[in-house]
Amino acid sequence: MHTKSPVIIDLKFDQEQVAAALKGAFPDREVINLLHPASRKRDLSGVEYAVVWRPGADLFERAKDLKVVFSGGAGVDHVLNLPGLPDVPLVRFVDETLTTRMSEWVVMQCLLHLRQHAAYEALRRERVWRELDQPEASDMTVGIMGFGVLGQDAARKLKTLGFNVIGWSKSGRAVKGFEVFDEAGLNTFLAKTDILVGLLPLTPDTKGIFNTGLFTRLSRKGPFGAPVFINAGRGGSQVEADIVASINDGTLRGASLDVFEQEPLPLESPFWAMDKVFLTPHAAAASDVGALFDHVAIQIARYESGKPLEHLVDRSAGY
Amino acid sequence: MHTKSPVIIDLKFDQEQVAAALKGAFPDREVINLLHPASRKRDLSGVEYAVVWRPGADLFERAKDLKVVFSGGAGVDHVLNLPGLPDVPLVRFVDETLTTRMSEWVVMQCLLHLRQHAAYEALRRERVWRELDQPEASDMTVGIMGFGVLGQDAARKLKTLGFNVIGWSKSGRAVKGFEVFDEAGLNTFLAKTDILVGLLPLTPDTKGIFNTGLFTRLSRKGPFGAPVFINAGRGGSQVEADIVASINDGTLRGASLDVFEQEPLPLESPFWAMDKVFLTPHAAAASDVGALFDHVAIQIARYESGKPLEHLVDRSAGY
Repeated sequence: MHTKSPVIIDLKFDQEQVAAALKGAFPDREVINLLHPASRKRDLSGVEYAVVWRPGADLFERAKDLKVVFSGGAGVDHVLNLPGLPDVPLVRFVDETLTTRMSEWVVMQCLLHLRQHAAYEALRRERVWRELDQPEASDMTVGIMGFGVLGQDAARKLKTLGFNVIGWSKSGRAVKGFEVFDEAGLNTFLAKTDILVGLLPLTPDTKGIFNTGLFTRLSRKGPFGAPVFINAGRGGSQVEADIVASINDGTLRGASLDVFEQEPLPLESPFWAMDKVFLTPHAAAASDVGALFDHVAIQIARYESGKPLEHLVDRSAGY
Repeated sequence: MHTKSPVIIDLKFDQEQVAAALKGAFPDREVINLLHPASRKRDLSGVEYAVVWRPGADLFERAKDLKVVFSGGAGVDHVLNLPGLPDVPLVRFVDETLTTRMSEWVVMQCLLHLRQHAAYEALRRERVWRELDQPEASDMTVGIMGFGVLGQDAARKLKTLGFNVIGWSKSGRAVKGFEVFDEAGLNTFLAKTDILVGLLPLTPDTKGIFNTGLFTRLSRKGPFGAPVFINAGRGGSQVEADIVASINDGTLRGASLDVFEQEPLPLESPFWAMDKVFLTPHAAAASDVGALFDHVAIQIARYESGKPLEHLVDRSAGY
């Protein structure tokens, strides 16, 4: 009987959660958790699979025989820049749980801005009972940049709540029920957008894309007169100094940020103290580690039985 | 030509909004705005229609010939207790806008509790970057008490986001897609409910219904181990001292309140300072005054052409 290849686990996640999820996962093969001290000097030659999130810089030097690399999240920028990344299939984590969680976060943030939660909290601190003029969801257009699995799921849920929703993607690929803009249509897309939601992968094209130049092209015709910026994609896509300045000078009415140029967010970041900014610690759509291992096991089974892998990353596009 | 009856307006709303909405409303009849000083001594005999929200106590003494009374909101308790309420049809305000707005508020509050917004805000004040264990919507059951137009719309939207949703109404009338409990099923309903949403009318039966005795029967088996109470119905349905005590002793994990025993909420209320309670000033579903007048004009037109009025209040039920 052919011995099945071990699987390397190198996930910079909560290690208690990883350990719990590994119980019972991959019953038919050895698991090498690189964050376990005993694995530090383990010979990784001959190992064909690795499941990684921000892996050690020397991983690909040590594991020379990988046949498939699995990302522990939807994004893959944390892998693509690593030295020695082998030219093997790279599989992203696509999971209903992750999608659902991301949509919960995006919908909540859009509602917080629509329903003026920050303004009501400020009134509350002064114990002022005052009703504010309140537009409804259908008075606002949410523009989602990054219109893949996550963007489309959020779009459908926002639409159910009454928001107008439009999409933007590099390809501008049509999606039933939504107007989708491509690169050439970016200005038109921005001019219609009252609430901008970023769900972009981090690539050379998207690095720093969310900057003052872009914010000034957003709609100012909405009920609040100034747009909102929401980012749950990658911190590298945003210029944080521009977000701060744009909020302070009124270019932006507010923001919701789950991702940051530097994570954890440095103590000295002005965002911590800005009432018009809602913050979460890269927690919008935590990967459920159990679901991740289920997904990896399914893909390995497909691979070993000669079926094509799913959710492959297009390296030339960078996502 | 028969002269059409004037319509009385007695709405304790923002008077600028009322004045703006009255422009162009009821073009074929006189409008008597009782909040206008000139109307103070106006003879109201012969006037057949009144549109009211917390009307003056002497309204029904002065307007003896009313044929239809229109409530300015979904609730009618503010009218039913008034002395001299004539035995004429009483029409509630049912409007897509009001329903949509209420669902925005309910969905946002459920998400704020699911996504641990209060806990994240507390961490943020300390500038602590820490991800919390995060259940997803499908791990929680929202139980909605009051399963009419508003409750069902919120239910459908919550379900789209992934929540389990069950309903409770006095009648227990079946609603497609949802398990609905009646009076006899209240304990079963409560035992399944992680997030309780109150959308009940205020009647003798519902006065003070949200009290410690009820809170202790809610589910403690959900991912957070303690239930949440959300009320956007009527403040008279809740016992506020019990809510405060239940949050302080852990019977409740948190609350979201849009309505209060006394409104405006008194300055000395402990709710203002409770981090686990989200507050809004009876603003969950502001009546759009323009939509209200459209609705009234439509119903008057039906009435005058001999068609039955819609959205009639059942006085024996109290709503």
